[in-house]
Amino acid sequence: MKRIAVLGSTGSIGVTTLDLVAKFRDRFEVTALAAGKNVERLAQQVKTFEPHIVGVGDGETRDELRRRLPDYRGDVVVGREGLEAVATEPTAELVVAGLVGALGLMPTLRALAAGKDVALANKEALVVAGELMTSAARAAGVRLLPLDSEHNAIFQALRGHEREDVRRIVLTASGGPFLRRPLADLERVTRAEALKHPTWKMGDKITVDSATLMNKGLEVIEAHWLFDLPPDQIDVLIHPQSIVHSMVEYIDGSVIAQMGIPDMTIPISYILAYPRRLPLDYLPSLDLPAGAALEFLEPDTTKFRCLALAYRALRAGGTTPAVLNAANEVAVAAFLGERIGFVRIADLIERIVDEHEMSAATDLETLLEADRWARERARRYIESDPPRLSAIG
Amino acid sequence: MKRIAVLGSTGSIGVTTLDLVAKFRDRFEVTALAAGKNVERLAQQVKTFEPHIVGVGDGETRDELRRRLPDYRGDVVVGREGLEAVATEPTAELVVAGLVGALGLMPTLRALAAGKDVALANKEALVVAGELMTSAARAAGVRLLPLDSEHNAIFQALRGHEREDVRRIVLTASGGPFLRRPLADLERVTRAEALKHPTWKMGDKITVDSATLMNKGLEVIEAHWLFDLPPDQIDVLIHPQSIVHSMVEYIDGSVIAQMGIPDMTIPISYILAYPRRLPLDYLPSLDLPAGAALEFLEPDTTKFRCLALAYRALRAGGTTPAVLNAANEVAVAAFLGERIGFVRIADLIERIVDEHEMSAATDLETLLEADRWARERARRYIESDPPRLSAIG
Repeated sequence: MKRIAVLGSTGSIGVTTLDLVAKFRDRFEVTALAAGKNVERLAQQVKTFEPHIVGVGDGETRDELRRRLPDYRGDVVVGREGLEAVATEPTAELVVAGLVGALGLMPTLRALAAGKDVALANKEALVVAGELMTSAARAAGVRLLPLDSEHNAIFQALRGHEREDVRRIVLTASGGPFLRRPLADLERVTRAEALKHPTWKMGDKITVDSATLMNKGLEVIEAHWLFDLPPDQIDVLIHPQSIVHSMVEYIDGSVIAQMGIPDMTIPISYILAYPRRLPLDYLPSLDLPAGAALEFLEPDTTKFRCLALAYRALRAGGTTPAVLNAANEVAVAAFLGERIGFVRIADLIERIVDEHEMSAATDLETLLEADRWARERARRYIESDPPRLSAIG
Repeated sequence: MKRIAVLGSTGSIGVTTLDLVAKFRDRFEVTALAAGKNVERLAQQVKTFEPHIVGVGDGETRDELRRRLPDYRGDVVVGREGLEAVATEPTAELVVAGLVGALGLMPTLRALAAGKDVALANKEALVVAGELMTSAARAAGVRLLPLDSEHNAIFQALRGHEREDVRRIVLTASGGPFLRRPLADLERVTRAEALKHPTWKMGDKITVDSATLMNKGLEVIEAHWLFDLPPDQIDVLIHPQSIVHSMVEYIDGSVIAQMGIPDMTIPISYILAYPRRLPLDYLPSLDLPAGAALEFLEPDTTKFRCLALAYRALRAGGTTPAVLNAANEVAVAAFLGERIGFVRIADLIERIVDEHEMSAATDLETLLEADRWARERARRYIESDPPRLSAIG
């Protein structure tokens, strides 16, 4: 019986995690749940899984939860304190970190420090604070386990093989909706076009990140921390069918790849059950003959500058990846709000990374300060100076 | 330092093995070599690697070898005795079984019984005598390690993962030169057409086996013994690009595949160095974007009946796979001699498998007797009764 705490239980990762727990009740137990304000879904989850602790976004949500579940005898804790109580719930062995954004940083660090293995879906944890996260995990002797399909594929393709025999890893990217559009066209693409992801159904922000390839850039930074590899041993290939989730090339030329249908249930189940696997007989099998042929292309970093910018930020190190990530968030929000064009996303990030004076990533406060600096600067440029931004592109 | 004996040192597997040993002299030592009559190449190998024992095909070859290498102080042993001396050379840890045909059976069994790990390239060893080979390996606590690119891929894709979590394995097949030819055309295909293999350069017999898909059928039988899986957990997919060498599907729907350029150096190096890998930096890397898209098709067993016949022989068990293999060898030789047409290869095998009265595969003599029976019968049908054979098709 593996005991699990879930941060972000009403989000997509949390819901899939709890679906798996419900299907395999003989293997898993939920000891703590944290969510924001989706009280209806959270109440249902608390009723089903009977955790010891529940974390909620605010006092109003707590009161509503208590009202809906008068018989619930566990603790309900509010805000940041709630997240940290769930992250460090004493009986949990594995914490599923399914929160989005900077909100997830502190509870993830607390979970690691408390000696929990952490299943990581929160991109910011490693992009912003990779050095802090990995040293916290090392210090506590626990593991950061990747839920992301690409990193999960690498994790599977490394398993059982010698780490010193790795030549490089290759993250695959669908290429997004603009893969075959000429560079000149990108000036004119719309919000609606950017939101048409060819293979995975995801939230708006990450879908735009897939269209700019920034998503893959952020994954390169994550991979650096997860697998302790330098940037030049981390490559990206466009693979429009999203069947090969990523691969590892070894020094003898052998390539080990993990493939599957594009369904997050598989990587989540792999981490929950690790080192065993769950029999997911109810999912459709990967039917290779029924699908399109598997294509692979080199990414065009002239067209998709965000990918090159992410490598640059990773090589610069320190606070730079946090700045890249923050500038990207503001730029994507502005694009989604139809305040800037698609090409200006990269313009804006490049400008802010150019202007950033890097510091060492010694503590969370320094990183969050760099994040705030980048956000503020990005907002100012968007509001005051749109013509100059387009001139850069 | 790993000590290696090579059976069939002047053949393709043997030569590639010794090339690797020459490149990595700090890791490997050759303690025994056996070859047939290629005295020139063998003399060169003996001079380079200075084995303790050399096995040769006949007395004439021995005398010629002694004449060429007057300073060689090791033993030179002739015939079957020579093969067995090499297979059981006391200091060798790993025996590379690169002999072709029934000749390889007895020395392979002897190597296993003598407590050596065996690197297996000899198809007959498992197709004819899988039960004997695997029980000899089990009894001695040693391993049968696959050199074949497909089985080697499975071996790599199983490594580190739980055996009980395997849903099925999938062997890939290029599909051979007749993949896209309609069934009706196969009546008319020529020897020259059958010998045009699209991706791998191999001997004539195995190239014809690839054209009929019997090669994949024999590999299904080998996989059954190597990986201890029932026939319905062993599938075949046509993959014309021969980049994915084979794959393992796990119970959660994850598929782990091994890919690489089509070069036997990689699987051979993997087995030699196992559990480590050799840095084969001098080989070209797998360049996925430069190649064609990877296609996968279900095999058509109405057109390629040999594949279905192999499954049938595996399910029947006992002496049946030996009979299938023997009938196939005679039929392919007759096709290569332009005495029967392409479609009659399957006709002939089917007829002989139909007529065979299966016995248990309890000892090598029973298996070799079944082999002789099938060969004789096949030859008789080819000589006396070609019209009836074509009528079956």
